[in-house]
Amino acid sequence: MIDQRLLPETFTVVSYRAHAEVARAITDMVVRGAPAIGAAAAFGLALAGFESRAQTVGELLSDLQAAAVTLKAARPTAVNLAWAVDRILDYVLRFSGSSVDDIRAFVLAEAQRLADEDVEVNKRMAAHGAELIADGDTIVHHCNTGALATVDWGTALGVIRMAWEQGKRIHVLVDETRPRLQGARLTAWELEQYGIPYEIISDNMSGYFMRAGKVQKVLFGADRITANGDVANKIGTYMLALAAKDNGIPAYSVAPTSTIDLSLAHGGLIPIEERAPAEVLDIQLAGERVTPRNAKARNPAFDVTPNRLITGIVTENGVAYPPFEVNLAKFVNRNS
Amino acid sequence: MIDQRLLPETFTVVSYRAHAEVARAITDMVVRGAPAIGAAAAFGLALAGFESRAQTVGELLSDLQAAAVTLKAARPTAVNLAWAVDRILDYVLRFSGSSVDDIRAFVLAEAQRLADEDVEVNKRMAAHGAELIADGDTIVHHCNTGALATVDWGTALGVIRMAWEQGKRIHVLVDETRPRLQGARLTAWELEQYGIPYEIISDNMSGYFMRAGKVQKVLFGADRITANGDVANKIGTYMLALAAKDNGIPAYSVAPTSTIDLSLAHGGLIPIEERAPAEVLDIQLAGERVTPRNAKARNPAFDVTPNRLITGIVTENGVAYPPFEVNLAKFVNRNS
Repeated sequence: MIDQRLLPETFTVVSYRAHAEVARAITDMVVRGAPAIGAAAAFGLALAGFESRAQTVGELLSDLQAAAVTLKAARPTAVNLAWAVDRILDYVLRFSGSSVDDIRAFVLAEAQRLADEDVEVNKRMAAHGAELIADGDTIVHHCNTGALATVDWGTALGVIRMAWEQGKRIHVLVDETRPRLQGARLTAWELEQYGIPYEIISDNMSGYFMRAGKVQKVLFGADRITANGDVANKIGTYMLALAAKDNGIPAYSVAPTSTIDLSLAHGGLIPIEERAPAEVLDIQLAGERVTPRNAKARNPAFDVTPNRLITGIVTENGVAYPPFEVNLAKFVNRNS
Repeated sequence: MIDQRLLPETFTVVSYRAHAEVARAITDMVVRGAPAIGAAAAFGLALAGFESRAQTVGELLSDLQAAAVTLKAARPTAVNLAWAVDRILDYVLRFSGSSVDDIRAFVLAEAQRLADEDVEVNKRMAAHGAELIADGDTIVHHCNTGALATVDWGTALGVIRMAWEQGKRIHVLVDETRPRLQGARLTAWELEQYGIPYEIISDNMSGYFMRAGKVQKVLFGADRITANGDVANKIGTYMLALAAKDNGIPAYSVAPTSTIDLSLAHGGLIPIEERAPAEVLDIQLAGERVTPRNAKARNPAFDVTPNRLITGIVTENGVAYPPFEVNLAKFVNRNS
């Protein structure tokens, strides 16, 4: 994995040999982004297969199920994590008549397939989403949703990249995305690679630029989308979408169907992770303290944007529009 | 002045002997907060009187007028700066028959009077505002509006302090207020002094806590309020007030009548300062760079919150409610 905590200062690739290390890397946000942690967990499960000393298929499946619990507990909000792990478990259960070594190989192969599909899915999403972007658009983008947040290409940032490659002149206002600065650190770094013009703003500034008439689109990813189209995503998405609505600016969530959780009726049912206060208090991760010595902080990592603030949800199968209760399920790929 | 850029790490008092130094200190935000920079500019004008080598009253008034231009140009958005300087100039013009030394003394005396009045005005505001706060309220507070932002006591934070001293159990969610972190650094520091319970949140989190039903009031100050009740205030106020409105939570601007600019019909006419990108890019002032080397940033220091999002404006003369076009002028103290 690229250690995303060190960007943009240094580009460091780290390797893991045990699923518990992968789970820890997900929790600590070495890797982050809903699709990326799904793929990471899939390979974590493959590692668990090779770690296992199982002599029988039953023992191996039991070890895989234990590893699945560990991996799924690494972070609670993004559904892609559980989706990826469950998909692989479901897959290998079909082969319980095979050998232990075969099943180890099947887990790895399915993890690789899942990762490869993510790139394919992202490009299809990008093509659908790029149709929504006009030449000359200034786009507010929240958090990081690019190649770093996925296996490659990205979700919302993938749409921006596709529109740019189509020759549309676009400008990105990059929400810095406190507290961990995924926008200022990661999205800015990616946009530098792609040569797409951008400026960084603090999260509380996007409304100012919208009111000034400078913003035509708002794009973000999703960590979990419920059956009614409520979107759990990085903290700050709700206030951003609210400002877009207040200014008549379309706000799109860009996410693969693996992010859609039809088992939950609405966003109030999504578990919201609350992370360590130090991320808020120290400004820099494990860095400089800028707040009073005894200060306390809160640190919810996600919020839920109600469906009334979402213009459309861009998936690999097309763009879903309200009423999401009716239209979203049509886009979910039931074969995956 | 207390050098507010160094809090909460160190408490350092700096002195100036020339009005140009005071103007520079205002620009660089050694001192900040609309009422505080008004008082600082008033004393800056007094320094200009003593700096002047004028032999005649005409020469002295000319020197004072030149100094007034310098001081008023230090920051454009908060009207208190111009209000304070103009008030003193208007005052001394009445004494153009006096001696040069007398006029120097009159300028200083009027600056001191203005500063003393600020404390008195703030306490009256706090008394009016505290009536709006209920026992058990959790209050979201933006930027710093306390003793540091005024001569003493504060505006919105003064309301919180008064409610606390009245025995109301309150809890403050302190918006960190990017990019300069006046909330995380200054408001947290002040609340520590007063013993009022608080937690720091990043600006993009307040909507989350509102939707969770945890917030009963939103309070902020103002840098300029136009005749129709539009409120220019620290960047982020608009998105905060929007989230309050979306959740049915009252949002009050707390500001002395010296912040009300009846000469402007609406907020679109207020000049909005844009400060150096480094404040966004470096996270810490003149500190660590956390963004890509070539990254650009935007940095509007204020935004305008439209009057439809303002529940009431707390002044020293009482609380003005909509329609502000009609009601606000009644509260402006025309004697000042």
